[in-house]
Formats: sequence, structure tokens, C-alpha cells
Amino acid sequence: MGTSVLSRRRFLQATATGAGVVLAGQKATADVRRVGPWASQYGERSPFDKVNRTISGNLQHESETPQQALSGMITPSSLHYERHHAGVPTIRPEEHKLLIHGMVEEPKVFTLHDLLRFPQASRICFLECAGNGKHHFKSDEKTTPQRLCGLISQSEWSGVSLSSLLREVGVKKSGSWLLAEGSDACLLTRSIPMERALDDVLIAYAQNGEAVRPEQGYPLRLIVPGCEGSMNVKWLRRLEVSDQPFMTREETAKYSDPLKDGTVRQFSFVMDAKSIITQPAYPLQIEKGWHEIRGLAWSGRGQVAGVEVSDDNGSSWHQAQLQSPVLDKSCVRFGLLWKWDGKERLLTSRVIDSTGYTQPSARELIAIRGKQSLRYHNNTMTTWRVQSDGQVFYQRMD
Amino acid sequence: MGTSVLSRRRFLQATATGAGVVLAGQKATADVRRVGPWASQYGERSPFDKVNRTISGNLQHESETPQQALSGMITPSSLHYERHHAGVPTIRPEEHKLLIHGMVEEPKVFTLHDLLRFPQASRICFLECAGNGKHHFKSDEKTTPQRLCGLISQSEWSGVSLSSLLREVGVKKSGSWLLAEGSDACLLTRSIPMERALDDVLIAYAQNGEAVRPEQGYPLRLIVPGCEGSMNVKWLRRLEVSDQPFMTREETAKYSDPLKDGTVRQFSFVMDAKSIITQPAYPLQIEKGWHEIRGLAWSGRGQVAGVEVSDDNGSSWHQAQLQSPVLDKSCVRFGLLWKWDGKERLLTSRVIDSTGYTQPSARELIAIRGKQSLRYHNNTMTTWRVQSDGQVFYQRMD
Repeated sequence: MGTSVLSRRRFLQATATGAGVVLAGQKATADVRRVGPWASQYGERSPFDKVNRTISGNLQHESETPQQALSGMITPSSLHYERHHAGVPTIRPEEHKLLIHGMVEEPKVFTLHDLLRFPQASRICFLECAGNGKHHFKSDEKTTPQRLCGLISQSEWSGVSLSSLLREVGVKKSGSWLLAEGSDACLLTRSIPMERALDDVLIAYAQNGEAVRPEQGYPLRLIVPGCEGSMNVKWLRRLEVSDQPFMTREETAKYSDPLKDGTVRQFSFVMDAKSIITQPAYPLQIEKGWHEIRGLAWSGRGQVAGVEVSDDNGSSWHQAQLQSPVLDKSCVRFGLLWKWDGKERLLTSRVIDSTGYTQPSARELIAIRGKQSLRYHNNTMTTWRVQSDGQVFYQRMD
Repeated sequence: MGTSVLSRRRFLQATATGAGVVLAGQKATADVRRVGPWASQYGERSPFDKVNRTISGNLQHESETPQQALSGMITPSSLHYERHHAGVPTIRPEEHKLLIHGMVEEPKVFTLHDLLRFPQASRICFLECAGNGKHHFKSDEKTTPQRLCGLISQSEWSGVSLSSLLREVGVKKSGSWLLAEGSDACLLTRSIPMERALDDVLIAYAQNGEAVRPEQGYPLRLIVPGCEGSMNVKWLRRLEVSDQPFMTREETAKYSDPLKDGTVRQFSFVMDAKSIITQPAYPLQIEKGWHEIRGLAWSGRGQVAGVEVSDDNGSSWHQAQLQSPVLDKSCVRFGLLWKWDGKERLLTSRVIDSTGYTQPSARELIAIRGKQSLRYHNNTMTTWRVQSDGQVFYQRMD
């Protein structure tokens, strides 16, 4: 594993030499150690940790999570992907209100103070932009996991069950759809079926323990587990009950899928099962020997049941280990110990979810839906080519 | 729930007035909305979110997590409690090394690069300072959950299983203890029984997905789930295998418990089950009607099996709801919907863990261990007094 045998004396000398660089200007020996800074009110990461989101989009309206540099299942809030349609509004929490109205017995307005008095529910689940796979069939070999798959992240979200609030206002019998509206400059809106709204939807005021981040919807975000990102309306200010969908811009002109036969698929809410190997991946160069192939897998339809990894372009598949816990509509990190023999290899992963669905290859997906529909909901497998010199590149398979 | 009935028109007017304050200087109407800032590389919290750790200790060598302001089970890394004995060292990751030596077949040094090649393991678990209850019998009624119980936090930790590394170096048959040493100026050391080291201990390089925070041990921290904080050695640089404990300062002069009979209890590794109501609590003033009593519960010996809440000084107890998932050696948030009738009430919680152990009252704990031993490992129940005017105060029970 690239380690070496050292005596304690040599190790201490080595460490002291290292510390000399840190203690800027000091001639360091093993005996000289300086007391560091004391406690702080709100911690920051190490100045040596330079892992960042990459900003993209013609308006810089999205940022991609650096999947290849992260561990475990929680995405740090500062690195959760962003996607907004009119920038990030600045909202004073004491002035923010949520109106629930339409086909209800008694329309009501809730302040944050009101919402905090309701029973709190929390869940760890992923959010994924419907466009998360949009670069798959356009990218060259020098493409990172961050670029290919940076629009999925995971947090623990806490807030109030939407079903509790809908009970408070009394949904009328005819109420079968819900409109969710954000407070951003474009007042982004999406329609949600009532059946889904009464299931596991949250009005979240917290993300990973603290207040929801501004770019994630501070102070209130709708969380619709397993469903495409834009339905998880940020800066939520209004919910309207109706007897039909609202046919908003973001479910007609956008976020709909043109099909092979000339029709358009609308309301493709749920994100299908997907996985990606996050290392080894471009731009890594690896050495011969043992590595852990690691990646992420998820399904909007339930739990990840298993992940398989191939190093021979899909001829043979090997069961990867899943980190625990494996939760419903939640991302899981997988790993497979793998010995690289120095030959060119094609590495691919595929996930099987608890409904029995298997992630499709590019060929399978294109055969079913046609390439033109794959701007949104592209959940194809990702393949990495390990060259004989150890360099790893993205391998397009379309 | 303190809500009011409003028409959409009145709501929009209200919102517009609110927006006027945000859009500094602009005369705002419902039609004027400005596009906000676009995406960023590394996000920050809202400028209106002022929740902070409180710095304490004679040297400002600790900071307390604001339990009353947090949600769910994950503590944001920036608000994870701190406790250090010689400040926070600045360590360049590429220079950091971990030596494993002593009674082993082949001593080895591991770089971060080496460790990243091993299979990754992750777990969500709490860390708790042994001194987390030290203010319990000293505090006046104006004491917050943050002060009483701010030295416990929870993260998802990711890294390498210590057992994998010990297999790499080959522990000799006589090796029954392990010394863990940090890189801080005091080179903090603790002894760990080999049986425990081979169980579920991690060498963590990641916390909540990204690199371990500097004050939590960047770049490497030992994670000994369920065991007192100081055993989770930060800035880990050396592990030495021996056939006996090392009797370091932090397990003899400190972190040992003087008992009633004049002897001293040493190596009280595991943190017993504990819970605390985090709201309502001082300094809140509550209104009559429905509230959710919320708090945290955990056990270093296993899972939380249940939490009970009393509003009548322990005469009757009611089963609280636990948020999910409930994990091994992991903190869980509980809640109980409760209607306050305007009378003085004493609110208390107690946890029962999966071993059948029940959190003791102050009287029970003092009877067993004597008050002088309760500087460390004080896991007594916490009681809050709700006065008839709605003000909530800490109620000492010793």
C-alpha cells in the first residue's frame, strides 16, 4: 500500500521537518510545538482544503457538487449542488410567510414561528436535478464525475410534514393537485399530485441540523423525496390546492421529455435509479495494485438493493459493498476492492433498486427513449477507461 | 397554532411590504422582484442565521453546541462542539503521517494518500466530552441546553477501519492495548483496549462528507464510537501497540472519577445513556396551547430504545416519538406533542437504551456515585420549570 517501515526516531524527525513548514519561519525540532488558536463560534474548513463546487450554466445559475472528493452519504451543505432560475433571494426569516389556500376549508398563513411548534420530522434523502445527466452524451474524455454527475447531493432535512399542514387547512374533496410557489424573482412554480403531497413531503426549515442554506431555499424549502429537484421548491411562500395540474412553465416548456414518436412526456416526477463510480475517474492517474473502486448509488423509487461493478466493459459483474445505513430514497456510497493489473480496463457500475429496476446502459436507454429525450432524466451508466499508463478517462458509450 | 385567515391579495400585499425591507431602498410592490446573486463555489449560511457555539473554559479551550437551535440528528460541522488541550494545530495534509508501531510484526507509516486507497467505512455516531454534565449541579436557573449539554455533537465520519490497518502491521499476540497520540502541542495521548480497537474504531479523514474540520482533528481523527470524547484522538499521528495501558495524564490525573469510598474509577470509557429536552427550555417564554417538546437522546452502549417525558416532576411518563433512523451509538431527536394548560410544570426526559439501562435521576446518580465523582460522566436527567407566566427555567434537582 505504498507504506514503508520506519523507526519511531526517523518518523519523529520526518514529522518535525514537516512541522517546520507549518510553523512559518521557525526552525522546528521534535521538541518545539506551538499552542494553536483556541475555540471559535462558527468553524471553518482547513485552509488546505480547496474542494469546491464548479459554477456552470450560461447565467452561472448552477453549481456542481465535487463528487470525487467527498465521502460517505451526507453532502456538506456548503457543497450541495445549486440550481436556481432567478438567483438567490435574500429573505428575512421574521418576515417570511407560507400561505396555503385554494380548495381548502380554511386558508391559512404560517410564520416560521408557527411551523416550529408543529411536530418535527427529519429525513436523509437526495435531491437531484432532472438535468443531472445532460452532459453524458456531449462530453469528451477529459470530464470529471463533478461535471457528469454534480447535480445530486444529499442532506438531512428537518421540518414539518406537509400532511400536517394540509390537515390544518382541510383539503376539499375535489383537491387533487397542489401548486408550490417560491419567493425568487421568477416565482418558480410546480404542480404536485395530492396523493404525493400527503405522503412523505416535508416543509423543511433545517438542512444538516442548521437553517436551510440560502441557495437551498432559506428559510423554507419543499422536500419531495425521490422527485426531480425543481419540484422541491425553494424559498417556498405559497401552496394552492386545485383539482388539476397548473401547467406551469417548468412542467411544460421545461422539464418535459420529447419522445421518439413526436409526443412529449410530461410530469416525469420520480428520479430513476442511477449510480456512478467517483474514483478512479478522470483526472486521476493510478498505480498498479489494490484500490477501492468507490461511487454513489440512489433511487427515487425506494432503496438501493445492490450495486454491481464491471472492469471488462460489462462482460462480468461483481457485487460491491454498500456503506450503511441504506435508507429509502437515499444515496449510498459503494465500494469494491479491486486489483489493477496494468492493463486497459473499462470500469462501469450499475444499481438495482428495491423495485427490481436495473440502471440501463446508454444503448438500452437510447433504444427506449431516443437520444433527443435524454436532456432530462438521463440515468445511464457511466464508464471510465483506465489506460495502461494508469490515466483514467471518461468513456462515452452512446 | 397562531395562524390567521387571509385572502391571497392581503397575503401578497403583506409579502410585498416585507420584500420592501429586503430590497434596500427600493419602493417594493408585488410586481418588483430583483434577481439575486448566482451560484458560488462554497456556500455560506444566511446572514440572518446567528446561531453560534459559545466559547468557554479558562483558556477558551472549548465551545458548546447550540442544541436548542438545531434540528434532526446531524450537527453541522461548523457547530460541532470543540474541546482541545493545546489549541488547534495547523497541519499540511501532504506532510501528515500516521505511524503504527510497538508490539507489531512490521511497523508502518501511512500517508493520507495510502489511507484513501483502503476500503472506506462511514458511520453516523455521536462524540461526547466526558465533562458534558459538569455544569449540572453548579448552574442557576438561567442556564440553557447549550451550557448544560453543549459538549455532544454528531457527524457522519468516514475513513478506514482501524482493524484493517492493524492487520497490515500484524499485531503480536501479546498486544492488548493501543496508545493513540495526537499532533497538537501537548501530544495528547489515550490508551484503548485492543478488543475495542479491533471492533468498530475508525481512522476518519472525513466528517459530514468533506475533510475533517481543523478543530475536530484535520486531517485524521480516531473515532471510537460511544466512548468519551478525549479517546477520539484528534490530529492522530501515532498508534503504539503494548501489553498494558499507558497511564497517560488524560486517564490518571484527568478523566477519572473519585468515588465515595475514596478510590478512583479509571478507564470509564463508555458514555452512558442520556437525554435532554432542548425545547421548551431557558430562555424561552411559551404561550398556552400545543407545543412539541423536543430533545436529544443517545447511548454509548447501543441504540436508544425509547424516551419518556414527564410534565409533573416524574409522577407520570409519556412515550415520545423518535425521529428515524435510530442507529447504534448514535444520537436521535425525540418529540412529544404537548398541550400547556398555563399551570406551573416540571418537564423531564429519560432515555432507555437497548441494554435495558434507564437514565438516572440526580438523586439516584448521587446515591450510587457520590456528588464529587460527577464532574465527568454525569448523565443525570435535566428538568425545566415552566412557570405560570410561560417563562422556562432550569430546575436543579440535586
